[in-house]
Amino acid sequence: MSLMVVGSMAFDALETPFGKVDRIIGGSATYAAWAASNFTNDIKQVSIIGGDFPQEEIDKLQHRGVDFDGVEVVKDGKSFFWSGRYHMDMNTRDTLVTELNVLEHFNPQIPESFKESEFLFLGNLVPAVQASVINQMKERPKLIVMDTMNFWMDVALDDLKKTMNMVDVIMVNDSEARQLSGEYSLVKAALKIQAMGPKYVIIKKGEHGALLFHEKHVFFAPALPLEDVFDPTGAGDTFAGGFMGHIARTKDVSFENMKTAIIVGSALASFCVEKFGPLRLQELDSVDIEARIQEFVELVNFDIVISN
Amino acid sequence: MSLMVVGSMAFDALETPFGKVDRIIGGSATYAAWAASNFTNDIKQVSIIGGDFPQEEIDKLQHRGVDFDGVEVVKDGKSFFWSGRYHMDMNTRDTLVTELNVLEHFNPQIPESFKESEFLFLGNLVPAVQASVINQMKERPKLIVMDTMNFWMDVALDDLKKTMNMVDVIMVNDSEARQLSGEYSLVKAALKIQAMGPKYVIIKKGEHGALLFHEKHVFFAPALPLEDVFDPTGAGDTFAGGFMGHIARTKDVSFENMKTAIIVGSALASFCVEKFGPLRLQELDSVDIEARIQEFVELVNFDIVISN
Repeated sequence: MSLMVVGSMAFDALETPFGKVDRIIGGSATYAAWAASNFTNDIKQVSIIGGDFPQEEIDKLQHRGVDFDGVEVVKDGKSFFWSGRYHMDMNTRDTLVTELNVLEHFNPQIPESFKESEFLFLGNLVPAVQASVINQMKERPKLIVMDTMNFWMDVALDDLKKTMNMVDVIMVNDSEARQLSGEYSLVKAALKIQAMGPKYVIIKKGEHGALLFHEKHVFFAPALPLEDVFDPTGAGDTFAGGFMGHIARTKDVSFENMKTAIIVGSALASFCVEKFGPLRLQELDSVDIEARIQEFVELVNFDIVISN
Repeated sequence: MSLMVVGSMAFDALETPFGKVDRIIGGSATYAAWAASNFTNDIKQVSIIGGDFPQEEIDKLQHRGVDFDGVEVVKDGKSFFWSGRYHMDMNTRDTLVTELNVLEHFNPQIPESFKESEFLFLGNLVPAVQASVINQMKERPKLIVMDTMNFWMDVALDDLKKTMNMVDVIMVNDSEARQLSGEYSLVKAALKIQAMGPKYVIIKKGEHGALLFHEKHVFFAPALPLEDVFDPTGAGDTFAGGFMGHIARTKDVSFENMKTAIIVGSALASFCVEKFGPLRLQELDSVDIEARIQEFVELVNFDIVISN
């Protein structure tokens, strides 16, 4: 039930209305691996870091079953760095600094031992890099899930479309779904995006939850209403990691099981935002997670009492 | 199981990205009565209209069991008129014209036969007028639900707080909840609003669904993802009418039953937006409604598969 996770491992500087932090680990693959490691201890990590990435953080992930053979270390390079400031609504943010550093030349060479991974998560990256990872696999994984962002729709749409055509599931946020499809209605947008390749479309709406579309079917998972959202950084990657972790644990890629995976992902994301960076994720246990999933059950559970 | 509905009956001129209409009936009490009449045929309508309000529309509502004894007709007056234009996102709109007309001097005199109504819905109105209606009741209704809007928070906050302290349930949208409480988190906002009087707080988020808060409990009802939203006018009042209709039919004011009422209200609202004004509401039958409620069940239904 090996899960391969491809994405950035980075440093972030974050500023929210509730505080700031100058340097904390981040990156899509970091969040995804932390979240997924609650459900599987066979994670194949593919990323690139500089010599500055803390050994302690690598140790912690390895201890959770994350295999670092696919993480290239550029000893005299610097890890990807991103700095951002969130507005009061926590849904909008300004990017203050983006330093690609070692990520600029990321050309992942997948280790032999990774090439038969059953499940593949492609974090947000250059679409051509995402495609090159898929092309290196010996067998096609049972499920390939990709994340992406509006930036690639602006500058690499053709490549993005090629990669989209190679995957099973795409995750985008609502404005990206609209940009990609040219449709305002998310129902119509999801149908158009399915026609581009992915049979499943997950539209993330942040504090407003997430939608899963497949053919004409739709499933909605709410976000848990929280007293405080401390730092939304990494919530989307954590959602993806929880989703993939559940799929890898259950080895079930049906639409029905994806619904549960989305609830699991939403539960993990609801923890992520409670502290800066991945700090909250690093202290969870299975009791916390089960209790949180139960909150989701109660949040949407109602008796069906119809007919006059 | 009589339900009293208090609010405006009006004409609207509407412009959406999908079309426009110069003059169609509207008003909070119109939408609420249409929605509620799917569940009870004992509706006591309290409103004020001019001689211009179409007799045909009155006949249609009376045929559904709506009692017009509480609707004052000012023969030589004009009905309330509102004109608005929606933006592409359908969540924001510009008011083009507001003519209060007969509504300016609305001072409802509740007929004796209405004063023992068991359930009371107060549509958005001057808070002091809402309070005067409550004060005219012989017995306190089993459930009093009020709607309001940001305008009254700006110009009549003291009166609004007095009225709030007399009701069981308040319905506001998310930005109004934030304005009223001074809290950004909707969880905190709902707690503060409960402390002002209403034991139940319903926060409407339009296309993002609705939240019901009671003490520390929270329930979330999604909005159905629709291919097209044609005209959102009246969706909130339709939601309220469906909610009240379900409560009046079941005579059950428990938190559990309110959850179902919110799903029923959401289902009715999802029809409302499919055509201009109340046109879609006027053609529904119970089969349509049950099928739509089933869509809500499927939308959020997932298997609980937890534990490693």
